[in-house]
Amino acid sequence: MSSFTALDRTCINTIRTLAMDAVQKANSGHPGAPMGLAPVAYVLWNRVMNYDPADPFWPNRDRFVLSNGHGSMLIYSLIHLAQIKNADMHHAKLTEGVSLPMEQLQRFRQLGSKTPGHPECDLTAGVETTTGPLGTGVGNIVGMAIAQKWRAGYYSRPGFEALFDHRVYGICGDGCMMEGVASEAASLAGHLKLNNITLVYDDNGITIDGHTHLAFSEDVPARFAAYGWNVLRVQDGNDIDAMLKAIEDSKKSDKPTLIALKTVIGYGSPNKADTHAAHGEPLGADEIKLTKKGYGWPEEQSFLVPDGVYDSFKSGMGARGAAAHAAWAKLFAEYKAKFPKEASELEAMERRELPAGWDKDIPVFPADAKGLATRESSGTVLNAIAKNVPYMVGGSADLNPSTKTYMKFEGAGVFTSKTPGGRNVHFGVREHGMGAIMNGMALSKLRSYGSGFLIFSDYGRPPIRLAAIMNLPVLYVFTHDSIGVGEDGPTHQPIEQIMSMRMIPNLIVIRPGDANEVAEAYRFALQQKHNPVVLCMTRQALPTLDRTKFAPASGLTKGGYALNDVANPDVVLIATGSEVPLIVDAAEKLAAEGIKAKLVSLPSWELFEKQSQEYRDSVIPPAVKARVCVEMGTAMGWEKYAGETGAIIAMRSFGASAPLKDLLPHFGFTTAAVVAAAKKQAGK
Amino acid sequence: MSSFTALDRTCINTIRTLAMDAVQKANSGHPGAPMGLAPVAYVLWNRVMNYDPADPFWPNRDRFVLSNGHGSMLIYSLIHLAQIKNADMHHAKLTEGVSLPMEQLQRFRQLGSKTPGHPECDLTAGVETTTGPLGTGVGNIVGMAIAQKWRAGYYSRPGFEALFDHRVYGICGDGCMMEGVASEAASLAGHLKLNNITLVYDDNGITIDGHTHLAFSEDVPARFAAYGWNVLRVQDGNDIDAMLKAIEDSKKSDKPTLIALKTVIGYGSPNKADTHAAHGEPLGADEIKLTKKGYGWPEEQSFLVPDGVYDSFKSGMGARGAAAHAAWAKLFAEYKAKFPKEASELEAMERRELPAGWDKDIPVFPADAKGLATRESSGTVLNAIAKNVPYMVGGSADLNPSTKTYMKFEGAGVFTSKTPGGRNVHFGVREHGMGAIMNGMALSKLRSYGSGFLIFSDYGRPPIRLAAIMNLPVLYVFTHDSIGVGEDGPTHQPIEQIMSMRMIPNLIVIRPGDANEVAEAYRFALQQKHNPVVLCMTRQALPTLDRTKFAPASGLTKGGYALNDVANPDVVLIATGSEVPLIVDAAEKLAAEGIKAKLVSLPSWELFEKQSQEYRDSVIPPAVKARVCVEMGTAMGWEKYAGETGAIIAMRSFGASAPLKDLLPHFGFTTAAVVAAAKKQAGK
Repeated sequence: MSSFTALDRTCINTIRTLAMDAVQKANSGHPGAPMGLAPVAYVLWNRVMNYDPADPFWPNRDRFVLSNGHGSMLIYSLIHLAQIKNADMHHAKLTEGVSLPMEQLQRFRQLGSKTPGHPECDLTAGVETTTGPLGTGVGNIVGMAIAQKWRAGYYSRPGFEALFDHRVYGICGDGCMMEGVASEAASLAGHLKLNNITLVYDDNGITIDGHTHLAFSEDVPARFAAYGWNVLRVQDGNDIDAMLKAIEDSKKSDKPTLIALKTVIGYGSPNKADTHAAHGEPLGADEIKLTKKGYGWPEEQSFLVPDGVYDSFKSGMGARGAAAHAAWAKLFAEYKAKFPKEASELEAMERRELPAGWDKDIPVFPADAKGLATRESSGTVLNAIAKNVPYMVGGSADLNPSTKTYMKFEGAGVFTSKTPGGRNVHFGVREHGMGAIMNGMALSKLRSYGSGFLIFSDYGRPPIRLAAIMNLPVLYVFTHDSIGVGEDGPTHQPIEQIMSMRMIPNLIVIRPGDANEVAEAYRFALQQKHNPVVLCMTRQALPTLDRTKFAPASGLTKGGYALNDVANPDVVLIATGSEVPLIVDAAEKLAAEGIKAKLVSLPSWELFEKQSQEYRDSVIPPAVKARVCVEMGTAMGWEKYAGETGAIIAMRSFGASAPLKDLLPHFGFTTAAVVAAAKKQAGK
Repeated sequence: MSSFTALDRTCINTIRTLAMDAVQKANSGHPGAPMGLAPVAYVLWNRVMNYDPADPFWPNRDRFVLSNGHGSMLIYSLIHLAQIKNADMHHAKLTEGVSLPMEQLQRFRQLGSKTPGHPECDLTAGVETTTGPLGTGVGNIVGMAIAQKWRAGYYSRPGFEALFDHRVYGICGDGCMMEGVASEAASLAGHLKLNNITLVYDDNGITIDGHTHLAFSEDVPARFAAYGWNVLRVQDGNDIDAMLKAIEDSKKSDKPTLIALKTVIGYGSPNKADTHAAHGEPLGADEIKLTKKGYGWPEEQSFLVPDGVYDSFKSGMGARGAAAHAAWAKLFAEYKAKFPKEASELEAMERRELPAGWDKDIPVFPADAKGLATRESSGTVLNAIAKNVPYMVGGSADLNPSTKTYMKFEGAGVFTSKTPGGRNVHFGVREHGMGAIMNGMALSKLRSYGSGFLIFSDYGRPPIRLAAIMNLPVLYVFTHDSIGVGEDGPTHQPIEQIMSMRMIPNLIVIRPGDANEVAEAYRFALQQKHNPVVLCMTRQALPTLDRTKFAPASGLTKGGYALNDVANPDVVLIATGSEVPLIVDAAEKLAAEGIKAKLVSLPSWELFEKQSQEYRDSVIPPAVKARVCVEMGTAMGWEKYAGETGAIIAMRSFGASAPLKDLLPHFGFTTAAVVAAAKKQAGK
């Protein structure tokens, strides 16, 4: 006998009709997915998930991710019906009222609404992650699942398991399944046996071009079984009893679960269901009437929420969530009494704060002409911080020996299914997946980091951008940041990567010029709450500047700073990262010829641009037009600091495979070249 | 009984020792993969592949792709031993001597050598594609396989099947298998039943971090079976009889074949085999001696090619290839006599030329104030050209109804396993895979194109870059090129994408400003032989300029041109794409106030930079500092044309979800804003 009633069916049709009506009113959007997915989403939200609508920040809430984010009206309808509390998501504070009053559904896709075309977690309480670019939500799910396992593995104590036992539910579509990022994440989830995942695959057979048989005939369930997933099937997208059983079964598995659910896109639309016409455009007023008629719905009414629907959510998700939250709060109080240090760390983590003394072991590197690669000092600083920030969890895309981001201190451990409190994550050769997973981890409040060769930031560019859209403080450590890569050649030598990341809004790119700038870069990065940070590190050794002769490295936090104090300079030399030593050497040579060079280290354009005009002018005096900018990346963009007449020593082609000592003169990165350019600029 | 002799074993060990010695001499590189893979590569090259070393351009040659490109010494050893003819790969011309004389192996990874760290097809005869970024070679393989099927499907005639019957062989490693791009490509290959593929999976269980069990425990063969592949297994990487049998079996399948081959990385190295120490660094002189001893090799000799080895390749690949090539040439002569038009098209295709009259149907669009979206005119022009260029084959990443790149003319058809002469390829929601596949198709001389939303160029950035490195004339049509996307919101609105592609060396980005610039953009793009081209098109309608009042659209080929003829302008207004109408409108308003504005359409920075300084100064007069640059993308980089004091009207944040009519004033893209900035610049 079914546990569902007519009211449940009404709730499901309410979700459907709200989606249809909002898309129609906006004259833009995707009605088909919400119509097909309403039943399973309803079952998840109202029957299964532990989620307290009164507090969208409750740490142990079950997570819900709509990876096919174009179906945003599904999630907006649910948020509305569940009457989730309003919040300032950016500052993680509850505010007055509910997240999405009806008026917001009616302003779907309008300027300034909280119901944008694709769900945005920084904007709308109840939205756990920003999705839209397909496949990426699957990666977020895996990241959230890692975060749950890690919290439980690291912070749980006997008797307190229930503090950390939430699950991650998600829905994805055919498009997600075709994207490689979802494949990468799913493979890792299987490897890590993340049995806290229940992912519903909306197998509706329709994509934008038409039926999936045009391009997609693989056996998705068999593929997921190959990844090590538990695979369940539900043949009818309206069989809510079968769905509920499958979801409950998924909780018992020792593997992540995929529920392959056969749905009908645009279910109920007599002329558009099961066609791509239902995918990405309004059904049209006439078709909506016909569809509502089929649902037994008042044809003329829009945005109708029948009697009993709000109550159903109140007595379902609402009551269940409130009770679970209350029980959790009681248990957490006991935990806090018994484990005050751990509890306070957990609370700090939720606030994106750091434990006291987090930076006490950051070293000061002594001046050293030989120096060390910034990837080396990066490894040292990262370890010095991470040992004091337990919830810093991360790893590399199979490049630990090269990127030096492995946490080596005692007790760091590796995150595996058997050691879920381990801090080092082996992401595998999966840069795109890594980024999406890092975002998921950060959404669950871990200080996630990931590393790789800078060139492969291209593979993971979409989730870097999404981190910036979501204002997530993830940390990237990209090493081998120029033709300094050497022999591996042009396929591995970044040219345009640094500059092209500087263009991503909200993202802060830092390219430190020596070991002490590395230390400052990490000190800065860890304190971010709302910005992703990319650190660019060298493969090759760089001298550690003598800070008794040059300005302190703390100038890095202003993005750019003068290394020396030169009144009325003949020329200003500006560099980042590995080219800072080059301008330092050049200045010495120039001084010997009586030419005064002002030296500017410019590790972060974004931070420099945030400073006052006065400060910026004090660093790069507008009156001094004689300038040389040096960076072993693309020249494009440097006009900004070089001005119309300044020299730019940079890359204007791909690199080449050779030892670095041969590449430097080949591409013109020598002291002599900088000196020559400076003299020409200075007119001497 | 084995068909292999002791000499075959010697050949295999020659490949291994050449790789060890070259890496040692370079003191850099990856010896382990070539040592493990030498047997299967030898079997493929010397026993199976139809490849004529005397002509690396023979169109019907079997292709070989090393997707794990870091094992480049494997391919270099083979090219050397097979004595492949030297060639100017960039201009597709045979030259004197052999591609890789021993001296080149000894200059492995040195500046100016033809043996760079990762194989580069534009440089070295015998290298079919540039690999290194993992997984991408698998996509190239799928593209080459599509090209073979398409050639046969479109050009074969009864009795002439043997002209078009080559196969594509490849090797990939664990790293490739973890990357999503390989998953995407493999899924499509299974869907298309590309049974001309034999892909060897080097299942050596080792990655850079250590054993694959750290991050990769999926069942790869089962995954490929789920994609619809024929999966074979060979348990011993030295069992060349079993390998030969598996390869021969693969030819009989109606599906693409994966041969899962268990190998030992660094095979024969007593202390480093089967460890990641054999992966990415020289074995060391002592270990090399021990390894050679184990092979029964003279320990002290480096770069040794024992007697009989060259002869073995000569009588193997050499004789077989020469015979196959000769038979092919004879048959092609008959084909040419019978089908002169088809033969001449095939010959033109090989030279990357276009059939006579290819551009005769490109329309001229009449002036039209209402106009049409450039994606619409793009679709019209693409169809007008494609119907006259049979080997233009391409499609979209599941966005045909939006990107308008579907070929609709009679007979275009869809590329499927049953209709392999079809021209429209459904790539599926697989942007990264699409790019890698397009590269493979272009390497096999098709004029491949692909389309998608511009924002998702981020997903496919790595193969765009590789096309630029390889100098391949692939064509991208990216639509929805700004916040003009409207309601889909910030996840779908490009900001930094156009500028960041302008930074990729060799890549030409064109953003046309009206329908006639679209026509010129295509006319230019199709004529490229060595440059990939990205066309950026709008979602929204743009007026078609009245070219009796403005300069002809053919100015586009110079990258930038003056739309009007203004002596001593008060201000120069510069725009691209959808912002051209904005400056045109602004100029009219300014004229009414007596302010003379010079209008510059700047659709391609790359092409503009190739013009003489004189021409550029004639377009943007250096003396006129009053300038306004307008582009609905990132402001970064525009300093180049704005100069130190010019105004830049551009994006400085992510976009927002709303109807475009509301976004334009919100983000300041109005005639009024341009007029105001222009007046301020002009000091009026």
